[in-house]
Order: sequence, then C-alpha cells, then structure tokens
Amino acid sequence: MIPISQSHIDRIVKDLTPPDEQARTQARAHLDTLTKPLGSLGRLEDIAAQLIAIHGAAPSLPLRKAVYTFAADHGIADEGVSAYPRAVTRQMVLNFLHGGAAINVLARLHGVALHVVDAGVDADFGGIPNLIHRKVRNGSRNMLHEPAMSDEELAKAIAVGAELAQQASAAGMQLIAIGEMGIGNTTSASAITCALTGASAAKATGRGTGVDHAAHAHKIHIVERVVTKHCPENTPPLAILQRVGGLEIAAMTGMVLAAATHRITIVCDGFISTAAAALAAAIAPEVKGYLIAGHRSEEPGHALLLSYLDLMPVLTLNMRLGEGTGAVLAMPVIESALALYSRMATFASANISEASQ
Amino acid sequence: MIPISQSHIDRIVKDLTPPDEQARTQARAHLDTLTKPLGSLGRLEDIAAQLIAIHGAAPSLPLRKAVYTFAADHGIADEGVSAYPRAVTRQMVLNFLHGGAAINVLARLHGVALHVVDAGVDADFGGIPNLIHRKVRNGSRNMLHEPAMSDEELAKAIAVGAELAQQASAAGMQLIAIGEMGIGNTTSASAITCALTGASAAKATGRGTGVDHAAHAHKIHIVERVVTKHCPENTPPLAILQRVGGLEIAAMTGMVLAAATHRITIVCDGFISTAAAALAAAIAPEVKGYLIAGHRSEEPGHALLLSYLDLMPVLTLNMRLGEGTGAVLAMPVIESALALYSRMATFASANISEASQ
Repeated sequence: MIPISQSHIDRIVKDLTPPDEQARTQARAHLDTLTKPLGSLGRLEDIAAQLIAIHGAAPSLPLRKAVYTFAADHGIADEGVSAYPRAVTRQMVLNFLHGGAAINVLARLHGVALHVVDAGVDADFGGIPNLIHRKVRNGSRNMLHEPAMSDEELAKAIAVGAELAQQASAAGMQLIAIGEMGIGNTTSASAITCALTGASAAKATGRGTGVDHAAHAHKIHIVERVVTKHCPENTPPLAILQRVGGLEIAAMTGMVLAAATHRITIVCDGFISTAAAALAAAIAPEVKGYLIAGHRSEEPGHALLLSYLDLMPVLTLNMRLGEGTGAVLAMPVIESALALYSRMATFASANISEASQ
Repeated sequence: MIPISQSHIDRIVKDLTPPDEQARTQARAHLDTLTKPLGSLGRLEDIAAQLIAIHGAAPSLPLRKAVYTFAADHGIADEGVSAYPRAVTRQMVLNFLHGGAAINVLARLHGVALHVVDAGVDADFGGIPNLIHRKVRNGSRNMLHEPAMSDEELAKAIAVGAELAQQASAAGMQLIAIGEMGIGNTTSASAITCALTGASAAKATGRGTGVDHAAHAHKIHIVERVVTKHCPENTPPLAILQRVGGLEIAAMTGMVLAAATHRITIVCDGFISTAAAALAAAIAPEVKGYLIAGHRSEEPGHALLLSYLDLMPVLTLNMRLGEGTGAVLAMPVIESALALYSRMATFASANISEASQ
C-alpha cells in the first residue's frame, strides 16, 4: 500500500519540470553583451540566468516576494538538546505577530510579505489574528522513542506547505523564502543531514541557539541514537522526514515541492530550512533548479547540506538565527542581479570597445 | 623639506580620531538584549556596533548614501597589461553619465547618489554636465620609467578626494562607497599590494578585466619590475602611492582620509579601492575603524589587502567589476544591520524566556 504522504507528494509534483535551459543559455548570451568584462558580475550572473530559466524571461522589478515562517515544537526537546525552554517557540510566534522579531524587521525593510504559520506549536493560540492556523499536532513526537510523525501527520504537514505555495502562486508571488522557529529543530536537521549525506553526528551537529560544551556532546549523542534507530543506510527521504523530521520541516518540504511545481523561486534560509529543501530535492530532483541558498549559517551541518545540494550561498555572515532572516537578506542581492540584467547598456548601444582577447 | 602631499595630508587628518569604543560596548550590550540567541546575527552585529561606534548612537534609516566613482588613465596601460584599450576609460565615463553601467543600475536600485569624478582621464570631456571635472593630468605617468605622479600631482589628486569628502560631510552623508574605473589600474593595485604586504608579484597579480595566460605572465613581470624599481622594503605609503599608484587611487586615498576625519563610514569596493584604503590606513591607522569591506573580489590581491586591513568582506560573489558595484551592493546589508539594532523587540519587552546557560 502506498503511504498517504507518498500519494500526496505524487499529486503535488505531477506537473514539476526543471527550469528552461534554453532560456538560461539565451540569458547568458545577453549577459555577455552588457558593458562589463565577461563574467565580471560573478554569482550575480548565475542568479539572473537562473531566474530567467525559471520564468522564461526577465520578470519586472520589484519581484513579488514573501517569506513563510513555519513554527512547530519538537518532542525531542524533552531530551535537553536546546539552550532555550520549549515555551520559547510559542513566545517567539507571538513576537512575530507583534512585529518585534528579526524577520519582521527585515521583511518590512525589504518589501517582503511575512506569513507566520503554526504547523505544530505546543500551545493554544485561540483564534489569534495574523497567524496562519495549521496546527497538525501539539509538537512532533519524541523521535528518541518513536517516529516524529505518523504517516497521516506527515501527509497533513506536507499539505500545509503545499497549500500555501499554491496560494502564493495564485497571488502571483515570484520569490519566496522559507524560514522556521522551533525549539529543538536543529537536532532534527542534524539527523536529516546524517541520513541524507552519510555524515557523522559529530560533523552534522552544532550548538544550535548556543548550548555549552557538555550539552553539545549530549546533543551529538542524541542525534547518533536517533539516526541509528530510524535511518539505516538508504532510508527513503520521505521516511527520513517522517521519522526524524518535524512538523515545520515537513511543511517546508511540501512548500518547496509545490512552489517549484508552480515555477516559484525558493530562497532557503539556514540549516533547518535547507534540510527541508534537501529532502524535497531527494524526493524530486527537479526542484533543485528552483532553489537559491540565501546564506550559509554558522551551523556546521549547513555546509554539508549546501554541498549535498550543490548550492553556493549568496551571503556568508555567520548568522544562525533562522526565521527566514538569511533568506530575506539575500533578496536585495537577487533583485540586484535581475536589475543589472535588464537595465545595463550593451557594448553596442553604449559604443564601447570590446576586449582584444 | 616636507613634500607638498605630506603637508596636505597632515592638514586633512588633523582632527582624525578613532571610533568611540564606549559606544561600541554599549551597542554590544543592547544587541544582547534583543529577541535572538546571543550573537546569532553574526557579522550584522559587528556592522551595527561599528556604525554606532562611528556615530555615537544609531543613525535613523534610510542612511544618506553616496558612491564616488573615480576615473583615470594609467601610463602603464601602454605596456599591454589590460584586455581593453585605454579608450575604454573615456567610453565608460560616458556610459556612467548616460546611466547605462552596472554602478548606475545598482545606485538607483538602492537609493545611493552616484558621483562620477574625472581625476585624470586621458580625454577631453569639454564641459559635459554631471561629471565632476577634477582632471589632474591626462593619465598618470608610465611607472615603468618614472614615478606615476609628481609630488604636486599627487597632492592635487589627494585633494580631489578630500574636497569631495568634505562636501559629502557638509551634505550630511553617512555612508559612502568608493569605486573606480581606469584601464590598467589593477596593475597599480598589484604593485601597491606587493609594496604594502611584501607579497610576490605572482601572488598579488590577477587577470584584471580578463587577460589571457600569456598576458597575465607579462603583467606579473611588469609588476615585478615596477616594484623593484620604486618600492624597496619600507618605502613609506605616500611614496608608494606617488610612484606606483594612480590619480584615481590617490583621490580615493584622499577621500578615505578625509571621510574618516568627518566620521563618515567608508565602504570599500574591490581590489583597487581597497588598495587606496590600505594606503590611507598605512598613512593614518585611525582610518581603519571607519572602513567596511563591501565584498571580496575575484582578484587574488584583494584577499591579501583585506587580510592586511583585517577586514571581513560583507559579500563574496566572485565579482571583479569595480566602479563601486560591490560596495553599493553591500549597503542594503549594512542598513539591515542597523534596522535590526534599532527595531527589534527585547527579551523583556516581548516577555520571552532567556537561555538557560
């Protein structure tokens, strides 16, 4: 029998195709006519060409931009893997709703619509406005003892992200960032990294929000036990997600799969959102062409995932906050790449001598 | 007898003092109260604290921002060190004035006032509008045969940048980028890098706008000859600038010295502008606290200079264009750092639990 979650995914990615390579080639050719030494805009040229491969032509500016911050609690937080108490997930969701968090500041500054999603916070928010209420469960299960989600919970969480991507597409969004908040979720991301890349728990596990040396050693040990229990070699990505993921991670995976299908460019944020994107790419490799790595975080596992996805981060600012902050901060650079593509003069139009070689 | 250029500099930096370390410490303390794990904004926290150390308090946003693109020709271009003919300096200045270059696009997109300065282009621009006419000479002298500038030319070129920094200060500018255009000027920057850091010509010399392998070897040889001729060990920075610099480089050095004196933050662009800033810092070490490295360019010598200045670049996007492009692209990140500092909620105001450790 096909699990509910797999049949969900099959429906989501039914029309998924990779970006248009012919459009990318034409974009590259146009870039070479602009008044600058060949290739001298570096990564900006790659980004512009990618956007054009996704859209078929250069979209006009400003892009329609959104960031989705998915929040959920984690059963594994009971094992003392975080420097912060579990209540902080709920408190930070309220901070997002009141506009005081880092992601609020950056989204406002850069013209990005912020959507805060309760995918599984262990708290009752009542009918509080401005929160997207999609709680699947009051936190994922403790993966030290059982899979983090049942198949049905996994399917529901994936559907949360897929539905929001569908709405983003209907609203004409072109560039979306995925971010998260969830005490304990770097432990999930480390386990996913081990399962996908084969890295050891020691290499894939960082200090998260800032645990001390002893707590870090304990966290590595927990990741080891969880991976040994749930993820023998060649565990399929959907099973990895179900067993060692989290509700916000599954929602982000669903969003990446659906957004790519709708030809929306997805900017990954840090370690946890990139773990979600890596799972999406393991499930459906065509999504890779729609991903941009907003930044490289301080978490050591993040570099492993970026390498697994073959993504070069736009920014490297030693950030390790999550929420979508690194992704939103990369958006002005992404729009700059498109502006240069569309607005620069050509050698011919500006009557400038070309290189002699 | 004190050279004219030295007495000029003594006047420029008369009131130069380093940024306020007490304000920086207070800024760090405030950052630790914001609703984020300690230090989790990484380099953004350093940038915010630096700006506050410079201004004494958090300036309001948007900052008043300008970019100065200094253009000049180089006698050394006669030696076949560039992929482009010398005429391109003039052609690109016209491209700047017509709004078609990369720096025009980025400056408009990010709300940065662009000033184009003729510090020594080998062309007659007549009274063409929108160009800041400060031509010291029709290109620097060929440093293979003689110092790039006479003492008087050096003093004049330094005064060009210092005067513009003074005007920027009077206009209330808070953040200025320095950029340049000048066929042959990576050869100067490489020679300056060798002289300041002791690096070999092979390590400090890149492909500039894109010379081929043979031309690169030739360029390394030229840099070697120039450094051997003009810059024995412990050559004073002002003598380095005079002998192997350029008119636009001297103007940028003057701008950095004067802008720091006026407590304006200076964003360096790529290899050539950072060479100018490195000379300014060698002349007056207090300027270092006013510098931000906008990006790290592809030119190998740039990394040597950033390390010499102990600066971490904001962006690393494999750019190698100059004009001020990498510096302007860093400005949204710099403003983001300040916005986070000023607009985020604190743990106390948002009623959020702090870390247990």
